[in-house]
Amino acid sequence: MLTRAIVNRVVSAALEEDAPWGDLTSTTLLPEDATATADLVAREPGVFSGGEVFSAAFSLTDPDVAVDLHVGDGDEFTSGDVLASVTGSARSILTAERVALNFTQRMSGIATLTAAYVAAIDGTRARIADTRKTTPGLRAFERHAVDSGGGRNHRYSLSDAVMAKDNHLAVLTRSGVDLATALRDALSRLPHTTHVVVEVDNLDQLAAVLDGGAHTVLLDNFSLPDLRAGVAMIDGRATVEASGGVTLETVGEIARTGVDVISVGALTHSARALDLGLDLRID
Amino acid sequence: MLTRAIVNRVVSAALEEDAPWGDLTSTTLLPEDATATADLVAREPGVFSGGEVFSAAFSLTDPDVAVDLHVGDGDEFTSGDVLASVTGSARSILTAERVALNFTQRMSGIATLTAAYVAAIDGTRARIADTRKTTPGLRAFERHAVDSGGGRNHRYSLSDAVMAKDNHLAVLTRSGVDLATALRDALSRLPHTTHVVVEVDNLDQLAAVLDGGAHTVLLDNFSLPDLRAGVAMIDGRATVEASGGVTLETVGEIARTGVDVISVGALTHSARALDLGLDLRID
Amino acid sequence: MLTRAIVNRVVSAALEEDAPWGDLTSTTLLPEDATATADLVAREPGVFSGGEVFSAAFSLTDPDVAVDLHVGDGDEFTSGDVLASVTGSARSILTAERVALNFTQRMSGIATLTAAYVAAIDGTRARIADTRKTTPGLRAFERHAVDSGGGRNHRYSLSDAVMAKDNHLAVLTRSGVDLATALRDALSRLPHTTHVVVEVDNLDQLAAVLDGGAHTVLLDNFSLPDLRAGVAMIDGRATVEASGGVTLETVGEIARTGVDVISVGALTHSARALDLGLDLRID
Amino acid sequence: MLTRAIVNRVVSAALEEDAPWGDLTSTTLLPEDATATADLVAREPGVFSGGEVFSAAFSLTDPDVAVDLHVGDGDEFTSGDVLASVTGSARSILTAERVALNFTQRMSGIATLTAAYVAAIDGTRARIADTRKTTPGLRAFERHAVDSGGGRNHRYSLSDAVMAKDNHLAVLTRSGVDLATALRDALSRLPHTTHVVVEVDNLDQLAAVLDGGAHTVLLDNFSLPDLRAGVAMIDGRATVEASGGVTLETVGEIARTGVDVISVGALTHSARALDLGLDLRID
Amino acid sequence: MLTRAIVNRVVSAALEEDAPWGDLTSTTLLPEDATATADLVAREPGVFSGGEVFSAAFSLTDPDVAVDLHVGDGDEFTSGDVLASVTGSARSILTAERVALNFTQRMSGIATLTAAYVAAIDGTRARIADTRKTTPGLRAFERHAVDSGGGRNHRYSLSDAVMAKDNHLAVLTRSGVDLATALRDALSRLPHTTHVVVEVDNLDQLAAVLDGGAHTVLLDNFSLPDLRAGVAMIDGRATVEASGGVTLETVGEIARTGVDVISVGALTHSARALDLGLDLRID
Amino acid sequence: MLTRAIVNRVVSAALEEDAPWGDLTSTTLLPEDATATADLVAREPGVFSGGEVFSAAFSLTDPDVAVDLHVGDGDEFTSGDVLASVTGSARSILTAERVALNFTQRMSGIATLTAAYVAAIDGTRARIADTRKTTPGLRAFERHAVDSGGGRNHRYSLSDAVMAKDNHLAVLTRSGVDLATALRDALSRLPHTTHVVVEVDNLDQLAAVLDGGAHTVLLDNFSLPDLRAGVAMIDGRATVEASGGVTLETVGEIARTGVDVISVGALTHSARALDLGLDLRID
Repeated sequence: MLTRAIVNRVVSAALEEDAPWGDLTSTTLLPEDATATADLVAREPGVFSGGEVFSAAFSLTDPDVAVDLHVGDGDEFTSGDVLASVTGSARSILTAERVALNFTQRMSGIATLTAAYVAAIDGTRARIADTRKTTPGLRAFERHAVDSGGGRNHRYSLSDAVMAKDNHLAVLTRSGVDLATALRDALSRLPHTTHVVVEVDNLDQLAAVLDGGAHTVLLDNFSLPDLRAGVAMIDGRATVEASGGVTLETVGEIARTGVDVISVGALTHSARALDLGLDLRID
Repeated sequence: MLTRAIVNRVVSAALEEDAPWGDLTSTTLLPEDATATADLVAREPGVFSGGEVFSAAFSLTDPDVAVDLHVGDGDEFTSGDVLASVTGSARSILTAERVALNFTQRMSGIATLTAAYVAAIDGTRARIADTRKTTPGLRAFERHAVDSGGGRNHRYSLSDAVMAKDNHLAVLTRSGVDLATALRDALSRLPHTTHVVVEVDNLDQLAAVLDGGAHTVLLDNFSLPDLRAGVAMIDGRATVEASGGVTLETVGEIARTGVDVISVGALTHSARALDLGLDLRID
Repeated sequence: MLTRAIVNRVVSAALEEDAPWGDLTSTTLLPEDATATADLVAREPGVFSGGEVFSAAFSLTDPDVAVDLHVGDGDEFTSGDVLASVTGSARSILTAERVALNFTQRMSGIATLTAAYVAAIDGTRARIADTRKTTPGLRAFERHAVDSGGGRNHRYSLSDAVMAKDNHLAVLTRSGVDLATALRDALSRLPHTTHVVVEVDNLDQLAAVLDGGAHTVLLDNFSLPDLRAGVAMIDGRATVEASGGVTLETVGEIARTGVDVISVGALTHSARALDLGLDLRID
Repeated sequence: MLTRAIVNRVVSAALEEDAPWGDLTSTTLLPEDATATADLVAREPGVFSGGEVFSAAFSLTDPDVAVDLHVGDGDEFTSGDVLASVTGSARSILTAERVALNFTQRMSGIATLTAAYVAAIDGTRARIADTRKTTPGLRAFERHAVDSGGGRNHRYSLSDAVMAKDNHLAVLTRSGVDLATALRDALSRLPHTTHVVVEVDNLDQLAAVLDGGAHTVLLDNFSLPDLRAGVAMIDGRATVEASGGVTLETVGEIARTGVDVISVGALTHSARALDLGLDLRID
Repeated sequence: MLTRAIVNRVVSAALEEDAPWGDLTSTTLLPEDATATADLVAREPGVFSGGEVFSAAFSLTDPDVAVDLHVGDGDEFTSGDVLASVTGSARSILTAERVALNFTQRMSGIATLTAAYVAAIDGTRARIADTRKTTPGLRAFERHAVDSGGGRNHRYSLSDAVMAKDNHLAVLTRSGVDLATALRDALSRLPHTTHVVVEVDNLDQLAAVLDGGAHTVLLDNFSLPDLRAGVAMIDGRATVEASGGVTLETVGEIARTGVDVISVGALTHSARALDLGLDLRID
Repeated sequence: MLTRAIVNRVVSAALEEDAPWGDLTSTTLLPEDATATADLVAREPGVFSGGEVFSAAFSLTDPDVAVDLHVGDGDEFTSGDVLASVTGSARSILTAERVALNFTQRMSGIATLTAAYVAAIDGTRARIADTRKTTPGLRAFERHAVDSGGGRNHRYSLSDAVMAKDNHLAVLTRSGVDLATALRDALSRLPHTTHVVVEVDNLDQLAAVLDGGAHTVLLDNFSLPDLRAGVAMIDGRATVEASGGVTLETVGEIARTGVDVISVGALTHSARALDLGLDLRID
């Protein structure tokens, strides 16, 4: 879910970053009245994300450039596919090209990696979720890309859900505060709509967390046997989330332990850009 | 080179993105007066970048948090090294943690990858340069990270240098404009301080480009023999830049063809985040 | 919970709205070196809220003005109490006075009204909650004021929780979509941390809502007998929220029906400003 | 008078405050292609204000939503009247609903209260005016609402007129500065277009204020006999403004003392929101 | 009168305009630890304006640079005078130099030209005033500079006073609206603090303007005899302002016709920058 | 080259500066439905610049105002020429008039002065260039105006080219750093696209500058014989730029010494506004 406001604000800023006082090359080298049609072409297979952003890069540069999207966000494509076409002033198209590609390559890279994780847990009850390990300034875009790849979003920010992690628990311990008491106290002051996740490192912490009223228990860096034990001990009283050491190789086994959610930081912090190019049509 | 203004603007926006109306977890769970010291610890070896940004994430959250950097940008470190320490309000430290890490992991990832490319061409006259394939909104940060890794920056944007690429040349051809004439005409209208790069796909284009007065010729996707031929033909009349198909495996051979600059998009568009963690000290 | 960033942004904007190119009166009429001490005095009893905002109005105008708060947010006071004192340049104090009062009077008015609602349900298990019927631009401030009055916050915005209201249900009906199916489908796509509230107008809708997996059922404009019936039917399977027709006279009876949450739009949309004044000390 | 720029800026900010990363409910629950028509219906009688703002809330969310205003700002309506109709995407309408209502209910509340004050002084020469006791960030909107109710605006801010109040006079006294001299000195340095208001607490101050050249004398918290005496003493040499202790019960008598202007802070700081609702049409 | 907020906002924007991603020269050429002291030296005589702005250019670049102002705004100086001194990091000083000078040269140029106009009417009752013919974005700065030169400010903007000019009167005429009626009607709707200026081209319009209640009559492009006649006809019933064809040669005669205000667009739209330089001290 | 983004941002800010809460005069005095046509008329001869900015001032105020430009940027005109026509709401036209004129008069003033300098060097190989002595906030507009007058732009900012001036060289000397070494070191760290200008005060510095690899040598305040000597000594190894003491009287002789570029600060810092007026058509 990308809002018109976010797309316009972030893409406008990117265009201004990339051409703070205009595009010297297009303006001095190309005839003002030259027009062109260009195709967004996949140079490798993947899952598309960022159609709205791709369009905005051109239309915010020049409202007279027409963008025709041939695929929707979430669609798979193969190498050589034409994903979109752009027609209008040659100057405008070449001015916006790099920004349009920078967004789309990154978003499609995330969607493609997410789709691989989703495929790897096919047939299980688990869902793949993102984390807050996103690129500063691009969280809405990267969460949207995870969604395009079939993943699910986690909380957006520190403001819309509680997640108590190891460092929080360490502070509580050092402050001599009992975890279950602290959780119940927080729940009494939080909005009744606030979901509370608590991360645990070992099974000994489970009782206090459930007693405190956590809605989700995050089992961090657990072995497969311990994950299975955790699922059994929690027994439906909370959502079970797993994280830590999740790779394309391990995610299937993790999912088959019966956890509900597997959160994967790599979806956003280490996806590589997909190779997409803008090819000018030679008529 | 990062300016105070850019660091403050971008880090403030990232903090607001990550906690638009505050950190529910710290505020409701942790005692207001709890203090903590935390260490930025490397979980894998690499090259550091982003010290100023790391500090700003904490000080913009809470000016009373003290940050002590133990390494400088560009310093190498190994797994387990403590790179920085942070002391102050536990709430403030845990509120800023994720943003501080998101920047530093990304920047150090870029610096580390850049350093690998630089090491691979050691002993040659070439330099490794970045491209405009940066994350929208983070160009200044990612260029700084390339610099930390020993790479060199290319032009910042479309506004500060000319680079005529294949698509520009295609428009000129279709418009019936002679390349050398177009270049000379552009040079007569551009600031005399503007550097002009022209990308060529084959050696046949070289004469026109040099005749037009280009300051740098970019040989794109050339074979090694063609690169060598290009260097010979240009013979010092312009800077020679190579790009396309550059990997850690190929970059050494490319450098040894005698080119001056090798520009590598992967430095910024596909570096993975380095694994750095913030460990609360247990006293 | 008010963040430093929100306070600075909103108070700065208010100061600029109130003196876009300076304070003509202070600047032309008062000696530049005149200093003063002024007291924030309550002209009626109430509950205080906005200490941080009050301070910011002065310190953003002139960092050399010292503000000493004598009460904390949430403290009760009576008519005549001195709530805070301000010392510094007379020009600066009188320039910031109106903005400081506009915020504090409004926030304390909300806190005072909230405290009255909270007192009226004393001894019950219910909590008083706010709504999204806040002043545009001041949501964080008004939620904080509700908290100062002992109330609890509801979701912050459309982005951090789901609330399906009568109009949403009407659209579903007209679209021929089954409510329980729609809810289950939404839950499968939403973050697992997202809380779902569904508003119902009558008891007949309850089964579908519970079947769909709603976390909170909002009983809107129910009679007291129907509220009691609703609480019994829901029987702990969801949080029970009541709204509509809630006044200081009715809220106690509503609470005693056994509902968990009573949300009251009037807390923010119709609280009157409390009468607080800034009195210059005459030494 | 509301400018396009202010309306767009403030309404956009309100929409972003209310849905920073989109409307979870509409997006996940409602069919993307569902359309709807909704009516803005009065649930109590009043005076309308905010038509332009109501429209902007929808059109800034989705330019394809059509808004048809059935009443103009300043028009009276009765309970049950349909004030406006909205047609378009059901998702868009329900996303913008709350922001549209928050503005319109508040503005119409102010207009309705203002109209009551204006009616109460009918037949006198006085005008009802607002004050700077407005909601931070919404001054332009609330002044417009006062105008819709038949009231008149006072100065906009500290920058466009001088108003010396009790605290200013106290500083002058303590600084040993003569009031008449200070006023004449200020007038010699102010723009010749700047209007000067001086507030007095008793009739003894009148001579100095008139001698100093004040354009308006503000009689603050005067008894009715003293107001009459003040009007007689000023005798047309300055505009006479009254303030303090003004209620719907007292304003008529105050107006009949012959004052020119009665300024009423309550118009903006304590008007309650009018009850307006958005009803989806069930066809 | 310059507010802290305006100075910070405009000077920050100017610094970012002049070094969007840093100062390449200082950073790559100068040692990081080199310090320097530089003097702001007058290369021609004049009147100073912009001390606060000069300081801000350095302190916003680097809070550790110390600025010592040797003259105040409004002080006269002669060629060779040292107006201020700056000490700190050589990199920082040279980065901020141009912005600091661009503001100060322009503001001192305006102050100096204004002082010449003020001197030329010495001994008369008239005042020299500026107009809205200011540089877009710099109105507050240029009005301050006029004040430094001993001039007086006119209205700030279209929002804080009424000025009906020839084009407004032409529209009224074409619309068949009587001027006096229109003015009285406007006065009944405007804030009672709003000053109304009406510009006339000939003496025949005077009666209607005075009848309508204008506070100031602006005699535009009048001959000296007509100015004298206008002053006599108005006879104290309104402030008399003259404009049009005002030069340093004519302004004295105009002032001696008895007008109250002479507004001069050239003060701001055509003042040349004063020659000030920043000289590094060679110790 | 003016980008859509810069024009919209700067013109919007100027309109808000000039009418922060609307145009009191038009709104209260003119009939809402009055329309008008107005002509932009030259009151003196000159060279036009700012057509796009002129249009934006009206269309950003009211999209329904139609602007018809009769001349292009760079076109010469004579006194009495109608340069553009504007048709639409009388209120809107008169609200935007001053901002439209403030920009256009200033830009056309710069274009006209630039054209005079360009004419004065006709027949030589030199080009006239601007400097960074521009109005803060308006650099893009003033550079565009220089271009309209036939001049050439210099570097935009401190970020896009290196220029080592007297103060930089003084710091190097005091730091005991050799100039040629410092230049070569800087070049090794700068982007290969960065142009390096070094300013010299006398011919003795030339050898080091050329040895260091400067691309342009700026001969500052040189006598004509020294300029000729400098051109001879540099002999094509670098671009030769002259500056200092350049007037319309001296520029021709300077150009005939054989320099490549003459940079003139007066183009932007001291051009007076051209006299253009907006005349309402009387039908």
